[in-house]
Amino acid sequence: MTNIVICGANGKMGHNIYNCADERDDCRVIAGIDLYTKQYADFPIFETPAQLPEKPDVIIDFSNPASLDGLLDYCLSTGTPLVIGATGYTDEQIAKIRSAAQQIPVFFTFNMSLGINLLVELAKKAASVLGDSFDIEIVEKHHNQKIDAPSGTAIMLANAVNETLDNSKHYVYDRHSRRQKREKSEIGMHAIRGGTIVGEHDVIFAGHDEVITLSHSAASKAVFAAGAVNAAVFLKDQPAGLYDMSKLV
Amino acid sequence: MTNIVICGANGKMGHNIYNCADERDDCRVIAGIDLYTKQYADFPIFETPAQLPEKPDVIIDFSNPASLDGLLDYCLSTGTPLVIGATGYTDEQIAKIRSAAQQIPVFFTFNMSLGINLLVELAKKAASVLGDSFDIEIVEKHHNQKIDAPSGTAIMLANAVNETLDNSKHYVYDRHSRRQKREKSEIGMHAIRGGTIVGEHDVIFAGHDEVITLSHSAASKAVFAAGAVNAAVFLKDQPAGLYDMSKLV
Amino acid sequence: MTNIVICGANGKMGHNIYNCADERDDCRVIAGIDLYTKQYADFPIFETPAQLPEKPDVIIDFSNPASLDGLLDYCLSTGTPLVIGATGYTDEQIAKIRSAAQQIPVFFTFNMSLGINLLVELAKKAASVLGDSFDIEIVEKHHNQKIDAPSGTAIMLANAVNETLDNSKHYVYDRHSRRQKREKSEIGMHAIRGGTIVGEHDVIFAGHDEVITLSHSAASKAVFAAGAVNAAVFLKDQPAGLYDMSKLV
Amino acid sequence: MTNIVICGANGKMGHNIYNCADERDDCRVIAGIDLYTKQYADFPIFETPAQLPEKPDVIIDFSNPASLDGLLDYCLSTGTPLVIGATGYTDEQIAKIRSAAQQIPVFFTFNMSLGINLLVELAKKAASVLGDSFDIEIVEKHHNQKIDAPSGTAIMLANAVNETLDNSKHYVYDRHSRRQKREKSEIGMHAIRGGTIVGEHDVIFAGHDEVITLSHSAASKAVFAAGAVNAAVFLKDQPAGLYDMSKLV
Repeated sequence: MTNIVICGANGKMGHNIYNCADERDDCRVIAGIDLYTKQYADFPIFETPAQLPEKPDVIIDFSNPASLDGLLDYCLSTGTPLVIGATGYTDEQIAKIRSAAQQIPVFFTFNMSLGINLLVELAKKAASVLGDSFDIEIVEKHHNQKIDAPSGTAIMLANAVNETLDNSKHYVYDRHSRRQKREKSEIGMHAIRGGTIVGEHDVIFAGHDEVITLSHSAASKAVFAAGAVNAAVFLKDQPAGLYDMSKLV
Repeated sequence: MTNIVICGANGKMGHNIYNCADERDDCRVIAGIDLYTKQYADFPIFETPAQLPEKPDVIIDFSNPASLDGLLDYCLSTGTPLVIGATGYTDEQIAKIRSAAQQIPVFFTFNMSLGINLLVELAKKAASVLGDSFDIEIVEKHHNQKIDAPSGTAIMLANAVNETLDNSKHYVYDRHSRRQKREKSEIGMHAIRGGTIVGEHDVIFAGHDEVITLSHSAASKAVFAAGAVNAAVFLKDQPAGLYDMSKLV
Repeated sequence: MTNIVICGANGKMGHNIYNCADERDDCRVIAGIDLYTKQYADFPIFETPAQLPEKPDVIIDFSNPASLDGLLDYCLSTGTPLVIGATGYTDEQIAKIRSAAQQIPVFFTFNMSLGINLLVELAKKAASVLGDSFDIEIVEKHHNQKIDAPSGTAIMLANAVNETLDNSKHYVYDRHSRRQKREKSEIGMHAIRGGTIVGEHDVIFAGHDEVITLSHSAASKAVFAAGAVNAAVFLKDQPAGLYDMSKLV
Repeated sequence: MTNIVICGANGKMGHNIYNCADERDDCRVIAGIDLYTKQYADFPIFETPAQLPEKPDVIIDFSNPASLDGLLDYCLSTGTPLVIGATGYTDEQIAKIRSAAQQIPVFFTFNMSLGINLLVELAKKAASVLGDSFDIEIVEKHHNQKIDAPSGTAIMLANAVNETLDNSKHYVYDRHSRRQKREKSEIGMHAIRGGTIVGEHDVIFAGHDEVITLSHSAASKAVFAAGAVNAAVFLKDQPAGLYDMSKLV
């Protein structure tokens, strides 16, 4: 049994993580951390980690970058493993996360879905086999409220493919303002926005008379909650170190 | 039986049109026009329309804008119907085409495929029903040798949808350089390039928890040849006027 | 303001309809009907229509066929318009529904989504234009708990297309047990099942070197709730008669 | 320079292989074998292998199972490597092929496309990661003249995935005749037929709120020719043994 504390317990992802953990037999949520402490399930919610009555087996953080320092202090002083699902950290904060991972187990990824992380592995394999004989394009679709483009996940995919190809590619976001053929070194990045689409990613390999497309579609944020809970159960028994989904794929 | 002359007979589309006409019982190619006059089938090829030994029922033109003046002269003086499948005309040339259509039947379209022209009609219908409650995005895919982006067909689709919505939309080609939510008035245009893809077009209507996608995929240029020959057989018996595929859809 | 009663108020669709109506300014739920009468929002729930304290403007029914007789009795005696979103009725029950529609406004459809009903219209248009020169196949995808196949919506799509083509088609569900070419008169029906897919439908028109695909994807049951509430607001002011989504498309 | 003989030189695939080899600098076609011996390029065509004036570096066979015995006799007695792209062999014939591979290099696969063989590898990887938590369905699309269903390639994909999962799955071709939920052990197989579609294959992994789809689309038979010529150039320098595309992926 893995005892979990959710940081950001009253956010949308916090509720999703509680629901996901509640359906499993091998873990449970024993407390939450959130500025808004109203209780919605059978566990108390505290404003800060310092108020936790007992040390959990692992903390899952889906709050925001402002919580990081307090969380790291608590985890380092108590030796608590930490799963980080929030995004938007500065380079300095990422350095702090890496540094903490020398003393405690830290799970850190841009996308908690098992499926997306598998997609990254498959895209790398495809790129290494097909090499320069296929053109690579990445298309992502998200809801009309998303403010960043392309998605962090699309960039993660492009970077993974590009590393496989010795970083020989550059990213192209707009072709309408030029009149020229596609260059071999391009990876086209396309950000489609509309309605309430949760998240879709296509990695397209287009060659001579054949096209391979690797696609992932998420229908709800529950996917990311499931990935975070998997990571938490995994992380409980690991030594200090920096972990990501490639350990679970 | 419709007697056809192909202008641009020795180009790729010329060959496609010959093959298409050859498989039908209701039409035949009786001559070609091309600067390169080498014969490849059972009809002679001449450099100019003036050299044609007899007046055809209809001329199909897939040459290039430079041929237009000579062709129009011939068609106007002989009363020959003209199917124009070449693209890239200036506004002045388009005005000449419109003017000629007051005296002879002229068929003029940006895309000769029956399927694409049906797609235009379906997209207009969808836009009129869904109105502003759905976000519209257009995605097209073509081979890596294409120099223009987005495709003329994608623009034709966007314009058709936009007219249906009282021209309330503007086109967006790149979202990576900004950080803001999608505006209601956007139509996102995405040009994917890779391999030898002949041509694919998606019109996406994304609403609250539902998405409608209207797609067309062409596997060869034969599609456009078939549309042109259909147009020729249709045009033979029409009075003077400007025609497009909406007459055949 | 349209006053709505939900029959099947405590089912999943009942909750969805309440949520949908709650977000609109032009309608509200004033009561529910359900065997399970526990209240979850600001309206009471009764076991039978007879217990309703006041006549609503319209009743939306997402309960089950067993409720039909009681509902029709109430609606006929009080002149209350009825939106029927439940499915699984016998032919005899459908006859009763049609009969009731001679006295009161009744809205009856196999699929409440605006998008799906638009898809039906587009598929009919496409079939009428493309005629017998294109082969038609229908693919639907649903979650692994669905017991019927193909979906009622897939059948609705096939029937609509088939009627457009003078009922010249027959449906084929399995090709693995034979060795023969596809016949012109086939419509292939394919039921894909997996995970938690809410509902996807493709109508494929495959011709000579071109394919047109008309697709709908639903991400949640909220789509059907929105359609039902739209229907309710529409139905309030209609005369007696049988209505379906074609009135709203 | 690899000297190639094409068996089935006057068939569609024979022409494709000639065209493909003709565009490369590292190989050339020196002769053909075909019952129909009319020459269409700069190499002679003979009725039987015995008539070949010189031993080639490798023979590519796209004829049909009836040619097998004569071909194997020639290759075994001369030590000529053999690439087999024809399909439809009996178990007895496959045993003969395996036996021959103990003495000479033999390349044998159900699908010569690099892309399809990569798809097999990716599907196996996905199945091993996702295990039983995702439902697997395979959808293939081909032209309306194809007589077998599902395609050999779809079966190759299903078998590869099934082996990865300890052969725990069974294949389901039709769901319309039953009323029950999908079983965990099913792999749904769907054969879509229409128009002139060359070949499309989707392997779908549907889980809780996420779907991964791995797709391959072929636009012409040139894809299979390119794979066969690659195999021939590879096979020339190999020792005796049975090879397939996994060596090239």
